[in-house]
Amino acid sequence: MKSLTDAVLKFRNERDWAQFHTLRHLIVSLNLEAAELLELTQWKSDAEIEALIAPEKTGHSAARSADTQSVAEAKDAAGIAAQRDALADECADVLLYLLLIADRAGIDLDRAARNKLRKNALKYPVELSRGSCRKYTELAALAPSTEKTASATPND
Amino acid sequence: MKSLTDAVLKFRNERDWAQFHTLRHLIVSLNLEAAELLELTQWKSDAEIEALIAPEKTGHSAARSADTQSVAEAKDAAGIAAQRDALADECADVLLYLLLIADRAGIDLDRAARNKLRKNALKYPVELSRGSCRKYTELAALAPSTEKTASATPND
Amino acid sequence: MKSLTDAVLKFRNERDWAQFHTLRHLIVSLNLEAAELLELTQWKSDAEIEALIAPEKTGHSAARSADTQSVAEAKDAAGIAAQRDALADECADVLLYLLLIADRAGIDLDRAARNKLRKNALKYPVELSRGSCRKYTELAALAPSTEKTASATPND
Amino acid sequence: MKSLTDAVLKFRNERDWAQFHTLRHLIVSLNLEAAELLELTQWKSDAEIEALIAPEKTGHSAARSADTQSVAEAKDAAGIAAQRDALADECADVLLYLLLIADRAGIDLDRAARNKLRKNALKYPVELSRGSCRKYTELAALAPSTEKTASATPND
Repeated sequence: MKSLTDAVLKFRNERDWAQFHTLRHLIVSLNLEAAELLELTQWKSDAEIEALIAPEKTGHSAARSADTQSVAEAKDAAGIAAQRDALADECADVLLYLLLIADRAGIDLDRAARNKLRKNALKYPVELSRGSCRKYTELAALAPSTEKTASATPND
Repeated sequence: MKSLTDAVLKFRNERDWAQFHTLRHLIVSLNLEAAELLELTQWKSDAEIEALIAPEKTGHSAARSADTQSVAEAKDAAGIAAQRDALADECADVLLYLLLIADRAGIDLDRAARNKLRKNALKYPVELSRGSCRKYTELAALAPSTEKTASATPND
Repeated sequence: MKSLTDAVLKFRNERDWAQFHTLRHLIVSLNLEAAELLELTQWKSDAEIEALIAPEKTGHSAARSADTQSVAEAKDAAGIAAQRDALADECADVLLYLLLIADRAGIDLDRAARNKLRKNALKYPVELSRGSCRKYTELAALAPSTEKTASATPND
Repeated sequence: MKSLTDAVLKFRNERDWAQFHTLRHLIVSLNLEAAELLELTQWKSDAEIEALIAPEKTGHSAARSADTQSVAEAKDAAGIAAQRDALADECADVLLYLLLIADRAGIDLDRAARNKLRKNALKYPVELSRGSCRKYTELAALAPSTEKTASATPND
């Protein structure tokens, strides 16, 4: 992350943009990029969203080879490829603003993330939260009767 | 980032949470963490937000040493320290969800970020965007008369 | 809406809060309330979200009458009722900030909304957008071949 | 609001869009419109944001009359007018989605808003919160020593 931070700071300094990069403006901008990421899911079914996953990841190609594709399939494949690029771009935008915020605020992101994982581990003990998407505030309420909740499924 | 991704995946797998981590849910969660970051700026003046910057970064300590502080100052300093921790935690939460999204979608975040910086460099050529916070769509309109806009200040 | 605006302005003025209600802070606050609305959907399946709809609306009661309910069912029903209240509360919060923004900015919300519907009607002509969730920018591209797209379904 | 709800439902039904308007999608869409509202504040100073307030509201015209304006001033005035329109449009979009959510979920928005104002009045008693932007969780902590906190200013 250090080398990436250097790259984005170089980009910023070449344009003399540090003057606009107050903590407030950077945080607002990160929120706007997060919203653009959310926009990629707008009106889409779960299946359409999961189709944005790279084929290397899912293990099957998104589209048949060019010579067996119909025109409609080729068009769809092009549309999906464009949306995958958009997904990567929006993730990148969130990361770039996060690096700028961390630099501005003097936060060591790697340390902060490991620190937060440790806090989360205390809030979500493995035995209470395994296989459950309950919030920690609800888990705490369940803590006395550990045995029952250990088998809790998310929707019960 | 690789080692941090491993840490968050280990955390997730120990709790058997991959089943909940659809791309849609992860993107919604990242937006909620971004909003918590935004909440740290709510009702605050610019000065109050900039006070969240770590003292190592600003070069001056946030508070005088304990023995010369009044009770009110000590309370303020404690409040600011708590908010700095909150800022680091929220940044960490955004990063952790971003790593989960990237892992899920098969995105190489480092490559995506460098790729996006290259695209941004084309949208915001140094000579047009130097010292200006105009959007690239407005910069494009200005492109023919480069010399004038090169000296553009953000608010003119 | 006029009488509701009066009520929220009275609430604000009794607390002398107009001083904090800059357009920036109100817009940030509306975004935070929108995020709380989004949080009500976090980790939920479509069915769990639709369960938040009031029973009067869906035409069937959320739970059987008390004397035929098991303890687990009664608990679920109480949880759903609490979440429905939360949904109404978050919608209310968004509306209250919207009224404050409109008052502050001198916007007639009713007129603005009707005006926007007219603009949307131009962007989304009935014959092009019927039964389709395509964005207007894509619809425009389709405009020359109206007949084909008139039957477009959202996922094709 | 009833008549406005009828107008937006008519718009929706003419396009056969109810099928896409699940509670989840409507809530996501409201968040995206809120973000567009936030985007209107991006990179702007407080003064630039307050310039979006309608001149009728501030009591002074945004620009001098046409015959005494320079070309640059006329351009600025046109830019500000466009942004005021954008502000009204984004507020309208938030309202339209809010009406659709309320219709879908069976929420009486007027009643929900008055109900929420009553809850807020309990969380923020006039004597504790007057002239203070503290959160109610902090106000509660202050409650025992009412006299001191009654004079609390937001930043002390």
